[in-house]
Amino acid sequence: MPEFRQNKATKEWVILAPERGKRPSDFIKGLTPRATVPPYKDDCPFCPGNEHLTYEPIYAHPAGKDWQVRVVPNKFAALQADLTVTRHRVGSFLTADGFGIAEVVIEHPRHNQTLATMEITEVAEVLRAYRERQIEISKNDKINLVTIFRNHGARAGTSLEHPHSQIIATPIVPPHVRYPMEQAVLHYDEFGRCVYCEMVAEEIRQGDRIIVESRNFVAFCPFAARSPFECRIYPKKHKATYILIEDDEILELASVLRETLARLYIGLNNPDHNYIIRSAPIGDHDTRHLHWYMVIIPKISTPAGFEIGSGIYINTASPEEAAEFLTQVKI
Amino acid sequence: MPEFRQNKATKEWVILAPERGKRPSDFIKGLTPRATVPPYKDDCPFCPGNEHLTYEPIYAHPAGKDWQVRVVPNKFAALQADLTVTRHRVGSFLTADGFGIAEVVIEHPRHNQTLATMEITEVAEVLRAYRERQIEISKNDKINLVTIFRNHGARAGTSLEHPHSQIIATPIVPPHVRYPMEQAVLHYDEFGRCVYCEMVAEEIRQGDRIIVESRNFVAFCPFAARSPFECRIYPKKHKATYILIEDDEILELASVLRETLARLYIGLNNPDHNYIIRSAPIGDHDTRHLHWYMVIIPKISTPAGFEIGSGIYINTASPEEAAEFLTQVKI
Repeated sequence: MPEFRQNKATKEWVILAPERGKRPSDFIKGLTPRATVPPYKDDCPFCPGNEHLTYEPIYAHPAGKDWQVRVVPNKFAALQADLTVTRHRVGSFLTADGFGIAEVVIEHPRHNQTLATMEITEVAEVLRAYRERQIEISKNDKINLVTIFRNHGARAGTSLEHPHSQIIATPIVPPHVRYPMEQAVLHYDEFGRCVYCEMVAEEIRQGDRIIVESRNFVAFCPFAARSPFECRIYPKKHKATYILIEDDEILELASVLRETLARLYIGLNNPDHNYIIRSAPIGDHDTRHLHWYMVIIPKISTPAGFEIGSGIYINTASPEEAAEFLTQVKI
Repeated sequence: MPEFRQNKATKEWVILAPERGKRPSDFIKGLTPRATVPPYKDDCPFCPGNEHLTYEPIYAHPAGKDWQVRVVPNKFAALQADLTVTRHRVGSFLTADGFGIAEVVIEHPRHNQTLATMEITEVAEVLRAYRERQIEISKNDKINLVTIFRNHGARAGTSLEHPHSQIIATPIVPPHVRYPMEQAVLHYDEFGRCVYCEMVAEEIRQGDRIIVESRNFVAFCPFAARSPFECRIYPKKHKATYILIEDDEILELASVLRETLARLYIGLNNPDHNYIIRSAPIGDHDTRHLHWYMVIIPKISTPAGFEIGSGIYINTASPEEAAEFLTQVKI
């Protein structure tokens, strides 16, 4: 029997209709396993030896030609750092100059690596690069929102094979981001607690969608998952922004993230996916009602007219079954 | 130079970054032109002669075996009409029974037709079927929102070739729908006018994104288009719901819709697309601040991590150039 499920934090609803769909194993696609990708490609701008094909690095660890992680300005940036944030009127419509910061995080020197197959310490260096760049970018007075994300595979919007993620920082905080913040404030004012803290505690209490849990982090398929095998990772302690992750938590998050991605990689045969780290806007870092998190979205279903029109996603895989399937994967 | 553009009605922003992209003609994909599809398929449940493969029609025009348009309950419905709207608690999470109505509108008896290639009178019969079904469904006390949509092609979420669209009616009006309503109320209370009426008037005044205009309707690539070749059709007169379209307007809308789709069909070589008719929720049909419209989204770009995370869409095609390209298409 189908049911609607509500995301406790955003109040958005999904339709869970698993009887239309398949067992978790039916979602496995015949994608090219990562193993067939070569470790190095002559013409890849992110491979060692081709550093001259990118802009000068903003961050590298370690510095020099033996870098493990490297952050460079995006050569094909949708926004430019040398513009203003001025608004303009076009008739009664509004525009703003295309100011923003766009960077690429090259996650590993080897072309055929991916977070799911890296060492935990290597994943930690990627997560550390995210934090360091987010700290630096947040010092820019004109920036209000930093979005960290990864597009893996063509269905997730990238054709670049080399393991990389991106950071785009904007002066704009759009309604799409503000609305859930408003819901979180209302919840805080009513119940005196961060709604995300409550949601995470409830997921742990119910326990049937957990993929992996550590002292400070928990990964699960959320109760109101919008698409098959959606996974989320939350810090258990209240923190509004990823900037506040501590040194000793980075290795722990790396372990949780790597295990979650490895279960997807092996269980679903290296699915195309997006992930996003969502933090509070700059200036709201200490707020008591927001909570950073990471959402991983395997691209194994297509949002269609109903989803675009209503915002109600039809999910054909039960998150309980998805989590069960993922925890059974041998890694 | 990239720029942010704001959707006047919803206040959402897009990034227009055409220099990253291509000229309009570069968006043309090598999709299979519709002409190679056979006019009839033995195993197609929507082809004449196979009526027994669907449920009994709820609507047919004309009645009988020579139908031109046929509406049937969706055999693979995500929601069921025989359930309640009761809410349930699962711990501190909320669910609702999966009540809803899901119907399929079979747009034409011939398998290889599509709205872009039909006669205007045939398109009008599809639009009439939408209205008649929306009127009937809206009489159901448990229904609050009716979404009419079309998924055309695999990238738009369908594998069924036979020309069809869908109607899904839900008891839930989600935040995704409520938020723009709130913006519209605020605008109405401040300026005393429907923000959509104003937006349409401004699009007509600026004039450089218009695709086709008739006495009562206008089709354009909107100022803040989220993706390449997004098109919208609005009634010029204030009407909150599609239900209120009048008999003599249906043929006129059919002409505008058919021309817009034909320009996309020929100009972009039959692109996969979604379209959606958005109406005010039931009970708000007479409201002065909402306005029904149709949005057509060719699926020639992929929303990725940044779009999902921030809600800010990066559009690599200028809507001015897209509209110019479409108006130049010979149909």
